[in-house]
Amino acid sequence: MVESETKRSEFIAVGTELLSSVFLETNSLFLAEKLEELGLRLSFKTVVSDELNDIKEALTVAKRRSQLIFISGGLGPTEDDRTREGVAKVLKKRLIFRPDILEKIKKRFESRGLTMPLSNRRQAYVIEGAEVLDNPNGTAPGLWLETKNYTIVLLPGPPAELQPMMENLVGTRLGELKRKQIIRAIIKIAGAGESWIEDQIKPVYTLLSKNLELTILASPGDVQIRLSMLAKDNEEKKLEVFERIKSKIIGILGEKVYSISGELLEEVVGRKLVERKKTLACAESCSGGLLTHRITNIPGSSNYFLEGLVTYSNQAKIRELGVSEKLIREKGAVSQEVAEAMAEGVRKKTGADFALSTTGIAGPGGGMLSKPVGLVYVGLAWSGGTLVERNLFKGTRDQIKFQATQKALDMLRLKLIEFEKKESKQ
Amino acid sequence: MVESETKRSEFIAVGTELLSSVFLETNSLFLAEKLEELGLRLSFKTVVSDELNDIKEALTVAKRRSQLIFISGGLGPTEDDRTREGVAKVLKKRLIFRPDILEKIKKRFESRGLTMPLSNRRQAYVIEGAEVLDNPNGTAPGLWLETKNYTIVLLPGPPAELQPMMENLVGTRLGELKRKQIIRAIIKIAGAGESWIEDQIKPVYTLLSKNLELTILASPGDVQIRLSMLAKDNEEKKLEVFERIKSKIIGILGEKVYSISGELLEEVVGRKLVERKKTLACAESCSGGLLTHRITNIPGSSNYFLEGLVTYSNQAKIRELGVSEKLIREKGAVSQEVAEAMAEGVRKKTGADFALSTTGIAGPGGGMLSKPVGLVYVGLAWSGGTLVERNLFKGTRDQIKFQATQKALDMLRLKLIEFEKKESKQ
Repeated sequence: MVESETKRSEFIAVGTELLSSVFLETNSLFLAEKLEELGLRLSFKTVVSDELNDIKEALTVAKRRSQLIFISGGLGPTEDDRTREGVAKVLKKRLIFRPDILEKIKKRFESRGLTMPLSNRRQAYVIEGAEVLDNPNGTAPGLWLETKNYTIVLLPGPPAELQPMMENLVGTRLGELKRKQIIRAIIKIAGAGESWIEDQIKPVYTLLSKNLELTILASPGDVQIRLSMLAKDNEEKKLEVFERIKSKIIGILGEKVYSISGELLEEVVGRKLVERKKTLACAESCSGGLLTHRITNIPGSSNYFLEGLVTYSNQAKIRELGVSEKLIREKGAVSQEVAEAMAEGVRKKTGADFALSTTGIAGPGGGMLSKPVGLVYVGLAWSGGTLVERNLFKGTRDQIKFQATQKALDMLRLKLIEFEKKESKQ
Repeated sequence: MVESETKRSEFIAVGTELLSSVFLETNSLFLAEKLEELGLRLSFKTVVSDELNDIKEALTVAKRRSQLIFISGGLGPTEDDRTREGVAKVLKKRLIFRPDILEKIKKRFESRGLTMPLSNRRQAYVIEGAEVLDNPNGTAPGLWLETKNYTIVLLPGPPAELQPMMENLVGTRLGELKRKQIIRAIIKIAGAGESWIEDQIKPVYTLLSKNLELTILASPGDVQIRLSMLAKDNEEKKLEVFERIKSKIIGILGEKVYSISGELLEEVVGRKLVERKKTLACAESCSGGLLTHRITNIPGSSNYFLEGLVTYSNQAKIRELGVSEKLIREKGAVSQEVAEAMAEGVRKKTGADFALSTTGIAGPGGGMLSKPVGLVYVGLAWSGGTLVERNLFKGTRDQIKFQATQKALDMLRLKLIEFEKKESKQ
């Protein structure tokens, strides 16, 4: 078994497409996160083409300098998939046909009423001496190859297959490496910009040390403050400092913080709705279904989410939501008044406890001087009233749609907190 | 000067943060694009930490196997910036202080009313024998180091500095490499799996050469066949072979191909609707707004998209779409009949020419033996009738939602093609 203190880890991603101008390798983010949980850091990441010689070259280099080597991709059924072959060649091992694996792959196809194409036979070959890692989400099994000097782990390329396999390894074989761990905290904020947040939390910076890192990760509509520190379980003083910094930041930012546990904003809102046994409906215009899509991404959302209406045309706003034609004519579809009428309309129609609405100009076309691209009204209706906020978002069509949905979810979150507070006072 | 025919190119990104779970290296996308314009491909990409020894290791490896090496990052003014030093050590060259560069850096600060911090002095050191590449957008100059066997190019890490510098190099020093260019084609298919496609197009493989590459890139619901070839403008025979292979693949896969120009499926459908001046509405259940979100992601979609209803609850299906309560009770909300009634209901209500519907079990919960997770009925209604397809998708909740939307869009695409054909016959 391998010891983490002395282990150098590296990652090799196989795939010609990952060297092009079109695709980025992203598996390493997840891998790094899992390794960080074990107190390990990647020392090198390499991307190589599907060429057999390049795969061999990358592994030869890695084997010389690292003791824990992850390779992803190139385990598929096509002729381009040469990772098994490349690794076997470098290690001077044979590829062995495993009828039991073939059987599993065949069954996978059969369960979907399909016949296994002949090409998938390739995936039943295993490098001599390697242990097979089950892949419940695809046909390519992973491989675990351990020698005295190094461990090589072959993982499938698709994230949906790699991630559960890696997750499983952390709980089992890789878990044994754990000596120190990286302690982390992720503080998420939807309703404020990066520079404002940075200014607010500056007093905390003096408490940071080389070992205790703070990173701010900002994208339009979402800012994450990430704290991380390497520590052993018994290093209580270190852990105390970490907690102090974390609390201080949360204290400074207050209710603007929507999560400290990695939750998505739509998860937080969903959890609060479930806790209060309340229901939700949406009427979207400029966010075009993204708000509903995000809400329904959460497993179990059918328990609180009733309905989403994407009323893109004026006709739809009038027919579905009862927005008056006169109001649209006088104020315009993108207006405070229409956002209000939309939220109220969908709430009334569906009987939901809360209703959200968006109307705005996502661009790139359709902007005017008085109503520029990025102008979005977001509405929230509940039994006690209606609230509309005017926003001027920057960015691409995608980013403006996303920011509109962040705003809507955050308004609902703050309203739910208001209710919680009132109750606790009573 | 270097010749592209024999050049192997690689890229090294320096930066400890690029090995964490938070940041991805993205400069290589731009670099690959610029190199592709010159007919060059990256053979390797490596990410290393800021550690001097790791930088030296990465360059030592690269120098052995490549002739054109790009290194980005680590040229800043801080003590973490050790790329200059690492490269100099590997090449056994000295670092030389250049007062003229210091002068430029000082002026840059002065022009903004600032005094240059002492630390920026580091940036005035140049590797012996290197030529300086001007950086109009930052303090770190680039370096160009050419020897008989290889060329090393040091670029600043920030994209806003790297990109103009690289752009400039393509017009000057790197431009001299241009002999050939990369010809590409991307053939996209939504309605078939990777192995099936591979089996179909196998006859084409005999036509491939070392120079003409074919890659298959698959994700649930979407498969891309990528062809690329290195050729000179006047190599007509080569270009002819490329076109022949491309046509052959398109011929084999026929209408399953939804794009050969890089378009998204929702773009193709949108374009066809605009061409025919037809409108669209959606009634979604299990895809939860994603179908509407994808459709409205396309700028100008308000010209053909009327409305999307995300009828998550049975109540909503009954009230909004006129699905009969009896039907839901007898057949279940996830059924052929309800998918049909949903598509017809939203079409009738909105007056759209076409209507799409989805109903199914996206998981992870809610599956039963008779109706497992992944079972999705997709409906299409038009003036001439209604079509429903039963699907059994694999994957995560996200992936099942996505596959449902791919299926819906592809059914509409095929129906629109049917109309096109009928018209051209008349």
